[in-house]
Amino acid sequence: MSHEIRIDKTKSPKAKPDQSNLGFGKYFTDHMFIMDYTEGTGWHDARIVPYGPLELDPATAALHYGQAIFEGMKAYNTQDGRILLFRPHKNMQRINVTNARMCIPQIDEDFFVDAVKALVNIDRDWIPASQGTSLYIRPFIFATDAVLGVHPSNTYKFIVILSPVGAYYSTGINPVKIYVENSYVRAVKGGTGFAKTCGNYAASLKAQAEAAEKGYIQVLWLDGVEKKYVEEVGSMNVFFKINGEVITPSLEGSILPGITRDSTIHLLKSMGIKVTERRIAIQEVFDAHKAGLLEEAFGTGTAAVISPIGELNWNGTGIIVNNGCTGELSSHIYDTITGIQSGELPDTFNWTVEVK
Amino acid sequence: MSHEIRIDKTKSPKAKPDQSNLGFGKYFTDHMFIMDYTEGTGWHDARIVPYGPLELDPATAALHYGQAIFEGMKAYNTQDGRILLFRPHKNMQRINVTNARMCIPQIDEDFFVDAVKALVNIDRDWIPASQGTSLYIRPFIFATDAVLGVHPSNTYKFIVILSPVGAYYSTGINPVKIYVENSYVRAVKGGTGFAKTCGNYAASLKAQAEAAEKGYIQVLWLDGVEKKYVEEVGSMNVFFKINGEVITPSLEGSILPGITRDSTIHLLKSMGIKVTERRIAIQEVFDAHKAGLLEEAFGTGTAAVISPIGELNWNGTGIIVNNGCTGELSSHIYDTITGIQSGELPDTFNWTVEVK
Repeated sequence: MSHEIRIDKTKSPKAKPDQSNLGFGKYFTDHMFIMDYTEGTGWHDARIVPYGPLELDPATAALHYGQAIFEGMKAYNTQDGRILLFRPHKNMQRINVTNARMCIPQIDEDFFVDAVKALVNIDRDWIPASQGTSLYIRPFIFATDAVLGVHPSNTYKFIVILSPVGAYYSTGINPVKIYVENSYVRAVKGGTGFAKTCGNYAASLKAQAEAAEKGYIQVLWLDGVEKKYVEEVGSMNVFFKINGEVITPSLEGSILPGITRDSTIHLLKSMGIKVTERRIAIQEVFDAHKAGLLEEAFGTGTAAVISPIGELNWNGTGIIVNNGCTGELSSHIYDTITGIQSGELPDTFNWTVEVK
Repeated sequence: MSHEIRIDKTKSPKAKPDQSNLGFGKYFTDHMFIMDYTEGTGWHDARIVPYGPLELDPATAALHYGQAIFEGMKAYNTQDGRILLFRPHKNMQRINVTNARMCIPQIDEDFFVDAVKALVNIDRDWIPASQGTSLYIRPFIFATDAVLGVHPSNTYKFIVILSPVGAYYSTGINPVKIYVENSYVRAVKGGTGFAKTCGNYAASLKAQAEAAEKGYIQVLWLDGVEKKYVEEVGSMNVFFKINGEVITPSLEGSILPGITRDSTIHLLKSMGIKVTERRIAIQEVFDAHKAGLLEEAFGTGTAAVISPIGELNWNGTGIIVNNGCTGELSSHIYDTITGIQSGELPDTFNWTVEVK
């Protein structure tokens, strides 16, 4: 499959936001990439056009039945003036895994990496330069049939929008308080937990809101069957360092296969640290803490990269991890991944892709 | 809370579709109801305007994180020229139950019933008259913040659209073949199964598509924890008549509390038939069939009202229910509910509400 990308540049570029106060996903660049899918024709009409509103029929399937998926990735300005993407093919591969689960047609992964590159290149002046900032890239696909029957849509839109984002932690990485969720369930094996589909995120809002009211920044999800095994933290994967070994829940269908998770595992292995993917019970984490063996805990994700866990509360029992401080390993992984992403460290794993 | 509804009538009414070939949710009427929500202001700017496309920012939260819900209800033309809604307050109550789960602000139930009445009244010429047809009413709410952070939106749209729909079964009600789903899970306790939110429907598409390939019209969902207990059939509630008693799964958080389900239970009780809401294992259904005690099985829902089950396949074992014919009780419930809905039978339960 090969496509031409039609380019229609904006005639009225927007003012760029203050780089010191970007926040996350609040500002959008001058252009967006759009491509349509029609059953029989396939993906067609690839174009980069001025960022602006979509005209959608009120019966648009995605608004009613949630057949919609997304990805999240970032572009970085390096100090020597290059623009780097971080493992973009992994995102496009995951789109196809998600699409298969959600009955959305497959995409041409190479072409869509090229499309992202073309879009980022056009809006390259929007990539912020200050420490910790980046250009967040949001590819998403949604069902556009304007019919109310519950069935896979015959038409879709693939859109990529770009948002300059600030450092996730304005004062460097800081440990967060996490509430172990016992009532609400994020996902269960046989469901859509491994897919990056919109419904997973809507389902998580209530638990998140209730934890926030109790003073916790995120929830730690337990499995939906036994409420026993650790799944994710908020919308991040989670790692525990116990007695020198790093353990992360194995991917068994209910957990998102995070790209930062994968990068972290590679990095740990290259450091000679034992890393194990397996089911881990929350009781085991608490027992390890009691025995003085829980050394660090952290979440991994595209937005925050590494988010150290300073406190865990489960059924009213709170434990403080690593005296509430960011662990040495958490810091090292954060520094290494962000260093590779921003071109400050050598790309020993061949993870970055330059936008030219 | 009291609201004025601003009315802006279309200047170019559409041609009405052929009533003999309406299908489901394919045609929409001339008008729609819209109301906006803004944090701090609440629901405001209620209006009935010409049906037409919505202008939505590409970052619209509902398209990314699925914070969107809907309802389904019907309006009927009676032979004596009245327009009837069927238990509309139940739909609006359920919206609020769904909203609470999905972190969407509550609505004023009475006002929204009035809004539906006003909209149906304006498009009353669109209500089809022939046997089995009706005007399908689709209220829905979705998050409209154009920000990529995962959190409850501060702004929403409540929209109601109307679609003239045909008889669900063109040749009367017919038993369908159902595949008992062992791999995919629709919902689990602690999740969003009881809420009418978009993600539940997207999650169901894959199993539905695979069952269709095997020649089955719908799947029967089992519970996500033990894959043992019956939950729903497709997007309908399910009933089994076993040895004179009617059993339907109890509402324990993973099942939609259907309004046709509730109406069916009331009707059965009024007929002096024993009806029990409890967990029912699929094994029990198959055992009852083996013992010659499984008399009928049927689904209930707004679209089809009653959908008799003629065949069930579980792990490769097929059973034929009631010789593959529509059961006497299934027929009777269908005739009674549709009779009340269309004004042909006396409304002994006070279920209908007239649109004046």
